[in-house]
Amino acid sequence: MAVTYARGFRAGTAACGIKAFTAGASAIPRGQRDDLCVVYSASPCDAGGVFTTNKVKSASVVIDQLHLQRNRVQALTINSGNANACTGAQGFRDALLMAKLSADRLDLDPDQVLVSSTGVIGRYLPMDAIKPGIAEACASLSADGGEAAARAIMTTDTVPKTARLDINVGGNAVRVGGMCKGSGMIHPNMATMLAYVTTDAAVEPGFLAAVTKSVADRSFNQVTIDGDSSTNDSFLILANGAAGNEPVRAGTAEAEHLVEALIEVARELSRSIARDGEGATRLITVRVEDATSDAEARTAARTVASSSLVKTAVHGGDPNWGRIVCALGYSGAELALDRLQLSVGGLVVFERGAGVDVDLAAVRRAFEQPEIEIVATLGLGEGKAEAWGCDLSEEYVRINADYTT
Amino acid sequence: MAVTYARGFRAGTAACGIKAFTAGASAIPRGQRDDLCVVYSASPCDAGGVFTTNKVKSASVVIDQLHLQRNRVQALTINSGNANACTGAQGFRDALLMAKLSADRLDLDPDQVLVSSTGVIGRYLPMDAIKPGIAEACASLSADGGEAAARAIMTTDTVPKTARLDINVGGNAVRVGGMCKGSGMIHPNMATMLAYVTTDAAVEPGFLAAVTKSVADRSFNQVTIDGDSSTNDSFLILANGAAGNEPVRAGTAEAEHLVEALIEVARELSRSIARDGEGATRLITVRVEDATSDAEARTAARTVASSSLVKTAVHGGDPNWGRIVCALGYSGAELALDRLQLSVGGLVVFERGAGVDVDLAAVRRAFEQPEIEIVATLGLGEGKAEAWGCDLSEEYVRINADYTT
Repeated sequence: MAVTYARGFRAGTAACGIKAFTAGASAIPRGQRDDLCVVYSASPCDAGGVFTTNKVKSASVVIDQLHLQRNRVQALTINSGNANACTGAQGFRDALLMAKLSADRLDLDPDQVLVSSTGVIGRYLPMDAIKPGIAEACASLSADGGEAAARAIMTTDTVPKTARLDINVGGNAVRVGGMCKGSGMIHPNMATMLAYVTTDAAVEPGFLAAVTKSVADRSFNQVTIDGDSSTNDSFLILANGAAGNEPVRAGTAEAEHLVEALIEVARELSRSIARDGEGATRLITVRVEDATSDAEARTAARTVASSSLVKTAVHGGDPNWGRIVCALGYSGAELALDRLQLSVGGLVVFERGAGVDVDLAAVRRAFEQPEIEIVATLGLGEGKAEAWGCDLSEEYVRINADYTT
Repeated sequence: MAVTYARGFRAGTAACGIKAFTAGASAIPRGQRDDLCVVYSASPCDAGGVFTTNKVKSASVVIDQLHLQRNRVQALTINSGNANACTGAQGFRDALLMAKLSADRLDLDPDQVLVSSTGVIGRYLPMDAIKPGIAEACASLSADGGEAAARAIMTTDTVPKTARLDINVGGNAVRVGGMCKGSGMIHPNMATMLAYVTTDAAVEPGFLAAVTKSVADRSFNQVTIDGDSSTNDSFLILANGAAGNEPVRAGTAEAEHLVEALIEVARELSRSIARDGEGATRLITVRVEDATSDAEARTAARTVASSSLVKTAVHGGDPNWGRIVCALGYSGAELALDRLQLSVGGLVVFERGAGVDVDLAAVRRAFEQPEIEIVATLGLGEGKAEAWGCDLSEEYVRINADYTT
């Protein structure tokens, strides 16, 4: 159950009509959809966050960065439909008020609450509607509320996105769960994407602050939809210790095991974002192997997965491997054409500096699957990485040509 | 006209059927279109070139870089329909043969000929068809051949692209002309774009090699269609001295004047590429002013002009200035939101850190013009630049989903 799968986490939602305030009917179906949620932990959490690298940041991002410094987080308050970005001083007051309203209801200090917003840029939050919404969400907190929360944070998403995993840490059963939203504006540097992973593992204070960036680099930062990096992207991990394990310390085998689990949940969420790219019909996984380093492999994989020409070729079921080679070439990663091997859907299409005379009909069938894997073996070193993207369809254009209107 | 506007330049064309060999009927109308041209100067030229930064380069690019070292260029041979990229050793043999075949016909050395190719990646040039084509083009050289040459280099372009300018250098009438092709895969680093500027100015040897990059930075490198950078991009400038002026020396007023003229012609060609982006219905000019430097202004302008979300918003006639602010934010350029002023079609839509309460219907009308100017005044320094792009339409996806098939 998403962010409430781990013990001690509850969630509640409300429909404030924020989307009706700020978004067009063509982009977001009007109706009874929730657009606000509160996630609450029975005890204070260790927490880590990674945020957008955009120089223009939503007030919510700035407030969260501030609140994480105290590392006493116990609740999240998230709204969809309005990004609270480019809203000046009023935006900061509104973000702080969101935290305070939740804190008052949950008997916390305001700096124990993290806030997130997603939606249209440049409009003030409708606080008159959010205030009763927060009260309603806090009143409906439930251990079964995770799925509803995952729906409440959706904007142009077509499906709610959740993941969960059970692991064992030092003999204790530990749960990891998560939810995210994102389909447009998704970028390596975490464009309009909100993601939350919760676990009942006990960790030493500061553990998550130290690992969250590394988790993001292997998951959300490798999702690319259209190359834009938004004002609001946030990825948060919370651990409340309800599993009762000995607190996990950095550098131990338990730490490695827990981080692998966090990455696994984050990767599953990442793939669900790529699969739900606006107008997407196919999930593209790009795996780069034998690069000079993991970092170069990540760059190369991301570049291929975000190439408009690769994405349109995949959409058209077009076995145009030249575009993949071309994208590798401008990725900036070290590349030796005569060492490169490229396969699409398991069929080698390029090696030793030139195209392979393959059965183009078979390649085309591979491209036409709902999931397609592109593997580039660079033959240069030990580095490897994956990135995920989606095809670029006419529907993407239709959705984004008319978002605020 | 075009590359034959300057005195002493002649051009000839031929239809070799290369496009029929390598490209799909859906992408390129079959017919009698020329797909090869030769441009010849009556006397050897000073020459400069800027080429793709992609690590995967067409054989033609590598050959040109070699031939430019001798600086004795007197002819160009260009084919469309096949990029001669990812073609291994055979590709190099073919590119060299293209130069040699032209040289033999024109009584030149092979290293006096530059070659360019554009089209599908990963297929061998059909040399059996190209050989008689070169003979035909060389036999039809004419001072009126510039327009036909501009058509012969087209691939998915919908219109030929030419420009010309008259200036006076030290009392002598000097002509500058040019042609280019490009509509898909256009990128700051000069994706599948071929551009040629010719002038009859006399310049000191090496003059053009020194200025061509600077001309490109203010023109072609600021054109962006879809963010992909191709294997074949080339921008060449040739000066044959037929105007009879005193050879222009670097650092003089005449040099500055000539470079300004080269930039002006290159900018006109650049805009024509942006206007002809695949599926484009609108030309977007992004002007960034008061940046910390010209280089930062160029980066910021390019990033806005290449944002998929800005491009789709413009396509939809959607006054979503938030996406413009967002793109400035992730461009990497220095940005202070409270100093930023943003206008669209002459209407201020953002200043002092927040949106301006403008007449959205008027903004929308501005977005709906065939040309739209976005001006971002950063309020930080003296740097300024322009970039050009086009809107992103459903038609772009249709064209590129099915290019080789």
